[in-house]
Amino acid sequence: MKTALVLLLVLATGAVAAPQDAILTVLRDAEAGWNAGDLEAYMQGYWQSEELRFAGGGTVTSGWQATLDRYRAHYTDRALMGTLVFSELDVTMLADDAAVVFGRWKLERADDEPQGLFTLVLRRFEHGWRIVHDHTSSAAP
Amino acid sequence: MKTALVLLLVLATGAVAAPQDAILTVLRDAEAGWNAGDLEAYMQGYWQSEELRFAGGGTVTSGWQATLDRYRAHYTDRALMGTLVFSELDVTMLADDAAVVFGRWKLERADDEPQGLFTLVLRRFEHGWRIVHDHTSSAAP
Repeated sequence: MKTALVLLLVLATGAVAAPQDAILTVLRDAEAGWNAGDLEAYMQGYWQSEELRFAGGGTVTSGWQATLDRYRAHYTDRALMGTLVFSELDVTMLADDAAVVFGRWKLERADDEPQGLFTLVLRRFEHGWRIVHDHTSSAAP
Repeated sequence: MKTALVLLLVLATGAVAAPQDAILTVLRDAEAGWNAGDLEAYMQGYWQSEELRFAGGGTVTSGWQATLDRYRAHYTDRALMGTLVFSELDVTMLADDAAVVFGRWKLERADDEPQGLFTLVLRRFEHGWRIVHDHTSSAAP
């Protein structure tokens, strides 16, 4: 009885959540940050390191701050940010502390709807899972 | 003396090559296959599985054969294939049997030079390292 109660408590606090769930939560939190118009909140899912790599549109950005600056330069107002929607998220565990997530992104905006694919590599750190490598591409319009 | 000879033989056969070297060899072999105008040889670096995933140009292709067919449909003659050049290859080991490779690709052709970035996830199988996930994007022309 006591064991069952402890187990219930553990389950309730998510301490035994599958890594896939923890990883999807990182993505859902990033999406929510973006949709609150808060690029810094969005960027919390990324590794706060100079070694973070963001590849997109033929260019590579290195480092957390440079990636945030890149987003700020592109998305200068709330309307441009639109509503970010991730879909078809597929998590593949590569090790206890490494995973790749593949999926689709879309920005729902008043006048257009840019979309494409992304491949993310995540590592598990002491404070949780973070994106260490992001390759984002756009579908031809 | 005998130990040194065995060590030399082992080194000569590459049996103790670092995984990074084995992975780069897979990529160099793929490049060489492409540049011999042989798409099947190029595809030997890819996981021969229905689960292979190739993402590019906003579309996703699943499976080794479908990926080969996609290449065949795009590159209908030798001139279109041009000369494939990989550069800035960066291998990150994620586990003993998993790695991510990031780099640039370029096709040197008579009339143009398409290029872009790629992120590859490789797994180590009994018969060697194979690409299990390929995300390739093009730079805006």
